[in-house]
Amino acid sequence: MKLATFQTTDKRERVGLVTDEGLVEITDIAPDMIALIADWPSLKAKVAARAREDVAHYRLKDVHLLAPVPRPQKVMAIGLNYADHIAESGAQTPERQIWFGKLGNAINGPYDPIHIPKASDKIDWEAEMVFVIGKRCRHVAKENAADVIFGYACGNDISVRDWQFHTPQWLVGKSFDTHAPIGPWIVTADEIGDPHTLGIRCLVNGETRQNSNTKHLVFNCFDQIAYLSQAMTLMPGDMVFTGTPGGVGQSMKPPQFLKAGDTVRIEIDKIGAIEAKMVAED
Amino acid sequence: MKLATFQTTDKRERVGLVTDEGLVEITDIAPDMIALIADWPSLKAKVAARAREDVAHYRLKDVHLLAPVPRPQKVMAIGLNYADHIAESGAQTPERQIWFGKLGNAINGPYDPIHIPKASDKIDWEAEMVFVIGKRCRHVAKENAADVIFGYACGNDISVRDWQFHTPQWLVGKSFDTHAPIGPWIVTADEIGDPHTLGIRCLVNGETRQNSNTKHLVFNCFDQIAYLSQAMTLMPGDMVFTGTPGGVGQSMKPPQFLKAGDTVRIEIDKIGAIEAKMVAED
Repeated sequence: MKLATFQTTDKRERVGLVTDEGLVEITDIAPDMIALIADWPSLKAKVAARAREDVAHYRLKDVHLLAPVPRPQKVMAIGLNYADHIAESGAQTPERQIWFGKLGNAINGPYDPIHIPKASDKIDWEAEMVFVIGKRCRHVAKENAADVIFGYACGNDISVRDWQFHTPQWLVGKSFDTHAPIGPWIVTADEIGDPHTLGIRCLVNGETRQNSNTKHLVFNCFDQIAYLSQAMTLMPGDMVFTGTPGGVGQSMKPPQFLKAGDTVRIEIDKIGAIEAKMVAED
Repeated sequence: MKLATFQTTDKRERVGLVTDEGLVEITDIAPDMIALIADWPSLKAKVAARAREDVAHYRLKDVHLLAPVPRPQKVMAIGLNYADHIAESGAQTPERQIWFGKLGNAINGPYDPIHIPKASDKIDWEAEMVFVIGKRCRHVAKENAADVIFGYACGNDISVRDWQFHTPQWLVGKSFDTHAPIGPWIVTADEIGDPHTLGIRCLVNGETRQNSNTKHLVFNCFDQIAYLSQAMTLMPGDMVFTGTPGGVGQSMKPPQFLKAGDTVRIEIDKIGAIEAKMVAED
C-alpha cells in the first residue's frame, strides 16, 4: 500500500491511502502517520478495506502532499555508502558506518520548494532511498532487521557543501530549512520486496545526474538497523536516509550546484518520484 | 520563574511552576511546555498569579520530574567550547562553531537513571548549561539573540567515547538512550540575568570533576544563536547544549569512566542541579 500525509484547502493534516483512482482519506482510522504505523498490525485490514469501498477519492493534483511523517522523533542519514560516491569524494570505503542527522526543521514535502539559503550558493543534490521504522525496537540483529521496516520513500539529502565542511561535523550543513524533502508517500515493505534491487536516479532540469541501484549500497538497510539499534531505541516513524550514489554536483568538473529556478527530481523504482523547484530563501 | 514538566501516580504529563512551597500545577494554563513557551507573552501573568493563589502544592519529592521539554523539535550541542576542555582534548581553539546533536531517544529526566549501555563501557560526563529557545526565529543577529532565549537548565552531555570516535561524526556516540538528561526545570531568562557568569560543576560520587564558570565559553550563547539561525529556523522548546569545561573522564590520567552504581551530579549557579544513578542497560 501507499500511505501519504496531505492537506486540502483547510490546511488540516490528514492521512490517506493512494490508489489507482487517487487518494482516499483514512484520518478516521488513525489521526496521523505515526499513530497509523505504530498500530499497523491492527489497522492494516481496515485500511485495505477502505480501498475497496465506494468512497470519494481526491485527485492527487488537488491535494498538497506533506512529508509522509511530518514530525519523526529522529531522521538519521548515512554518508559515503555507495562505492562510486566514495570514489568521487576521494574517500576510502569506511570500515564503520558514518552517521549524521537531518533535523526536524529540514523536513519538507515531496513537491515543496527547496531553499537556496541566504548563507550559501553551494547547494547540492543527493538522491537517497529512505526507510521508515515500523516498531519500537532496540538491539535488532541484522537477520531480523527486515521485520522493523515499515516501508520506503524517496529522499533528497540536500547538502550545503561549504557549511557541511566548516568543521568535521556535517550536521548543520545537512539541516538547513527545507533540505530534507521526503515522499511522495510511504510504500509499505510488502509491496517493495527486496529493497536492494531498486534503480535510483536524480535529474536536474531533466538531465540525469545520478543513476544507480540500491544493490550497490556498501552497508545495506539491515546493516544500518543492526548498527543504529545498538545505540538507540528506534521508534515508529523514524526515517533513515540510506546514502547517495555517485554523481553529486560537488564532484563534477567543474563543480555544479543548484540555483534558483532549477528543478530537482528523485526517482526510485517501485516507490515513485519527488520533484521540487529551487527558490531563493525569502 | 521555574517551570517543570512532571508526572504523578497516573503518569500523565503535566506542567508545573516551582515555588518555595513546592510545585503547583499549571497544565490548565498550557497543556505542555512547548505550548507554554510559544504563548508565554500572553500566559506569563496567569502563571505568576497562580503562585500567589491559595492552591495545593505538590512536594517536589512526591512527583516525578521529566525533562522540561520532553519532545523538542531539535537538541543541538556544541563541541570544544571551553579553553581548558580544548587543551585537555589536545585540540586547537576552533575558528568555527562545531555542532552535533542529541537525538530524541536520548532525552532523560533530571533524576532518572542513565544507562551504561551494553555496547560500551567508555561512558563519560559533560556538565553543560542548556538554553531553551523561546520564539520561532531565523537570522537572529548576535545583539538580538538574548530576546529569543526563554530560559536555562542543567544538562549532562553523556558521551560514549569509543562510539563517538568510531568515525569523524560524533552524533551516534552522543545519542545513546538516556544520554541527554536535562533539568531539573527551566529557569526563565529574566531570573538568570547574564548567563555568562554562572559557576558550573560536575560531581561523580560526590567528588568534583569539573568546576568552571560560563564566563569561559569560547562562543557564548548569543554567538551560538547567531550561527545556528543562519541555517535553521529555531523553534520554541528547542534545546541547545552550550559546551563542557575541562575535567572530563576521557582526559584524566589514566582515563576514568562512569560505571553502574555511580552517581553523577551537574550543578549550575541560579539554576539548580540534576543528579542520576548510573545503571546497566537491561
